[in-house]
Amino acid sequence: MAVYTKVDDHMLADFLGRYDHGQANIFKGIAEGVSNSNYYLETTTDRFILTLYEQRAEAEDLPYFLDLMEHLAQKNIPCPLPVRDRNEIALQELAGRNACMITFLKGVSLDHLSPVHCAEAGKALAEMHLALKDFDQVRRNDLSLTDWDTITNDLSPRLDEVQRGLCDTLKQEVTDLTSHWPTNLPSGTIHADLFPDNVLFTGDKLTGLIDFYFACTDFFAYDLAICINAWCFDDKQNFMADEAKAMIMAYDAVRPLSDDEKEALPYLCRGAALRFTLTRLQDWLNPVEDAIVSPKDPLNFLRRLQFFQNNRNIFIYD
Amino acid sequence: MAVYTKVDDHMLADFLGRYDHGQANIFKGIAEGVSNSNYYLETTTDRFILTLYEQRAEAEDLPYFLDLMEHLAQKNIPCPLPVRDRNEIALQELAGRNACMITFLKGVSLDHLSPVHCAEAGKALAEMHLALKDFDQVRRNDLSLTDWDTITNDLSPRLDEVQRGLCDTLKQEVTDLTSHWPTNLPSGTIHADLFPDNVLFTGDKLTGLIDFYFACTDFFAYDLAICINAWCFDDKQNFMADEAKAMIMAYDAVRPLSDDEKEALPYLCRGAALRFTLTRLQDWLNPVEDAIVSPKDPLNFLRRLQFFQNNRNIFIYD
Repeated sequence: MAVYTKVDDHMLADFLGRYDHGQANIFKGIAEGVSNSNYYLETTTDRFILTLYEQRAEAEDLPYFLDLMEHLAQKNIPCPLPVRDRNEIALQELAGRNACMITFLKGVSLDHLSPVHCAEAGKALAEMHLALKDFDQVRRNDLSLTDWDTITNDLSPRLDEVQRGLCDTLKQEVTDLTSHWPTNLPSGTIHADLFPDNVLFTGDKLTGLIDFYFACTDFFAYDLAICINAWCFDDKQNFMADEAKAMIMAYDAVRPLSDDEKEALPYLCRGAALRFTLTRLQDWLNPVEDAIVSPKDPLNFLRRLQFFQNNRNIFIYD
Repeated sequence: MAVYTKVDDHMLADFLGRYDHGQANIFKGIAEGVSNSNYYLETTTDRFILTLYEQRAEAEDLPYFLDLMEHLAQKNIPCPLPVRDRNEIALQELAGRNACMITFLKGVSLDHLSPVHCAEAGKALAEMHLALKDFDQVRRNDLSLTDWDTITNDLSPRLDEVQRGLCDTLKQEVTDLTSHWPTNLPSGTIHADLFPDNVLFTGDKLTGLIDFYFACTDFFAYDLAICINAWCFDDKQNFMADEAKAMIMAYDAVRPLSDDEKEALPYLCRGAALRFTLTRLQDWLNPVEDAIVSPKDPLNFLRRLQFFQNNRNIFIYD
């Protein structure tokens, strides 16, 4: 949620000179994304988001993310399309940063979610998974099981600052998940961060999926588990059963879940809750100077984790 | 340059329910303004900027600023128009803040200025001054001569931290300006902060004047002096004589400057340079927690001040 890197008028004119989209009519830094600089850009011909990738984005992964968006957009998944310049180049350099201009999607992200919205998200997630079956690039999920162990160990000297007993709780959870983590579920490319602020709606209709910069190769059902964590708890961390059911049923109607996937779902949900607990703890314990967003309470996801520990049968619907 | 206050989807829907502009299609926090929260808002019918006034904006002055913009917009000065709701109310409450929706202006602000742009700004400033001759509300300029003395005294214990001898330099300047400050120039409502980032262009054509939240009653020529300071120095603090001449001539062609105003201009420029030196020193010495913009180097305007001290005849063009 930041504009870190300033793009001045000359830089922007030079940049737009590589394309056939005319000159800038509107150019405004927007509060979107955590680690990149984002601008809303309207030219004589069209609307775009211009992203400058700051240090946190791994440069070597950028072609993967851009190819992924292009693949999805070509399959009519409502996501931004990286725009290629006259030389067919999408990944540019601007103001000393890697940069890319992507198409702009209308819609607003929602804060108050109903089963209708969760069903829309579940359906879109399944459609995205199907559309990615023939996307053949691979990117390891660097926030998965073995990484949770590493992060927990790295943070362990300071975890009890946040909450007494937290270190033991998390180590125990890593152990439990390690012995129960599925090994053979259908897998492919997943979004891995499809929170409500990465989904756009016009009214109750889903109009866009954005922010693919955590995308990686993992179990499809783990992506659904992330969405359940992200969409199906209220402000007080209460599980919203109707929303979860609507999301899972809508997903299943497009891409039917196997019995193995259904059985694994509670553990996948615990894993997803642990993943966000851990990265939020990292942000909490190592606040970034100049960060514009205050770190989010890491214990919100711990409460979700505990919910899934205590409710192993919630996804049995029939 | 910030979004401080979050407006969630329900708040926004309630807010838009007061108007006949349909629902939100796009709603994005934008990096604009220093002390308020600003959102780009596109509804079914039109585009707006939604501003939430944070604590720094004096609530009692808001009706003045909004009336001023309405007066100017009605006289076809290209500035935002505060939008009134169905009950004819422009100043609203939203998310616990005073708030106002204003019309959106196309255009981009410029970083690299030529005499053409400075002439456009000078002309627009003069047109604005003429359009304000019958605006009868008054707001004291609380960053003028007597205030500079107060601020200098308040900061005096810490000024030499910034630069050795700075305290004496500034006190001497306040004394000099006090004895030379004009008392009887044409006055009225001025913008008082018309920096390049508050002026929008499409190509070389000026399309908007924005951010009227420093507007007040003072000498018209002092507003021009602020613009000369803001527009007519390069990145290295070198005076750009062609740009200044273009600005002053374009202003004078619309609203002819009197001999008294021309004579006072070098002192008015020193005053404007001192005003920005002092407020930037305040920001520098008292950085705001959570500020998104780093304080600007206060000595840039001190160099401009010294330029005007040493060049008393630069505005004699014929």
